[in-house]
Amino acid sequence: MSLQPLTARAFAPFGQLIQCDGATHYPINQGMTERYHDLATIELAGENSRPMISIFRGQPYQMPLELKMMERHPLGSQAFYPLSDQPFIVIVAPDNQGQPARPLAFLTTPGQGINIAMNVWHGVLTPLHQISDFIVVDRGGEGNNLDEHHFGFTYLIVSTA
Amino acid sequence: MSLQPLTARAFAPFGQLIQCDGATHYPINQGMTERYHDLATIELAGENSRPMISIFRGQPYQMPLELKMMERHPLGSQAFYPLSDQPFIVIVAPDNQGQPARPLAFLTTPGQGINIAMNVWHGVLTPLHQISDFIVVDRGGEGNNLDEHHFGFTYLIVSTA
Repeated sequence: MSLQPLTARAFAPFGQLIQCDGATHYPINQGMTERYHDLATIELAGENSRPMISIFRGQPYQMPLELKMMERHPLGSQAFYPLSDQPFIVIVAPDNQGQPARPLAFLTTPGQGINIAMNVWHGVLTPLHQISDFIVVDRGGEGNNLDEHHFGFTYLIVSTA
Repeated sequence: MSLQPLTARAFAPFGQLIQCDGATHYPINQGMTERYHDLATIELAGENSRPMISIFRGQPYQMPLELKMMERHPLGSQAFYPLSDQPFIVIVAPDNQGQPARPLAFLTTPGQGINIAMNVWHGVLTPLHQISDFIVVDRGGEGNNLDEHHFGFTYLIVSTA
């Protein structure tokens, strides 16, 4: 399968893009700061749930990418915002009776982060080219918040020209 | 007053530093990602409170910096993580009977973000040198979440050599 550009419209069934482009914004601090406001829907379910801020430091993956497994978090959303201008790959899939259906693979452009909605199938963090840091906002609390699906075969994801 | 380096110890009375340095971390995703875990205490008070992710785009300030006003958010914490390696200034103050006492002014180094605790007096977002973007995690919901104090005089904040 081929990478496609990451757009708000294409990603809408799976969560939200976190980006200034197209966002509601307004000036604060006597006009010295522009606030691009409320860019993601943070979802927190289960016992004693709370939002958490973490940093993920990801090793780069090579293309073509082999996708053998997807995961989802039944108790919360998970937001990723890159701390560099390096692109990363976002893989998501609709659910089909508790298993991921055919995945979609997106390539980000600089300034794009994502918030993966609660219980949406997705691939692991997949930076390219170099070690890349991300700010992550996800859910802490009790209960099992991880569901993994191993396909038993490999999707090969290639760059388009 | 002079800028001082931003350290976790000096900032502890006012919130948390968000940084990999010194943080609890562990590998995930078959060792391909290192998770620097749960770096901030997100506080959410009041009616219908919820966490929000926004992007703040800040105009740069000139040194010496004139500080005439501080603010605090009585219903929630506010986290800022820079999307560049540019330094910014963090100004906080202890409370003294509902007003800010003498402020402290810190200068960040690359990779340092902050989470300002609920109801802690602080200055506005103060990048230096160039327009700078920040990921912000703060509180949405009902009620008045802004308290401003105008000193009626000016603190002049200077760089040390």
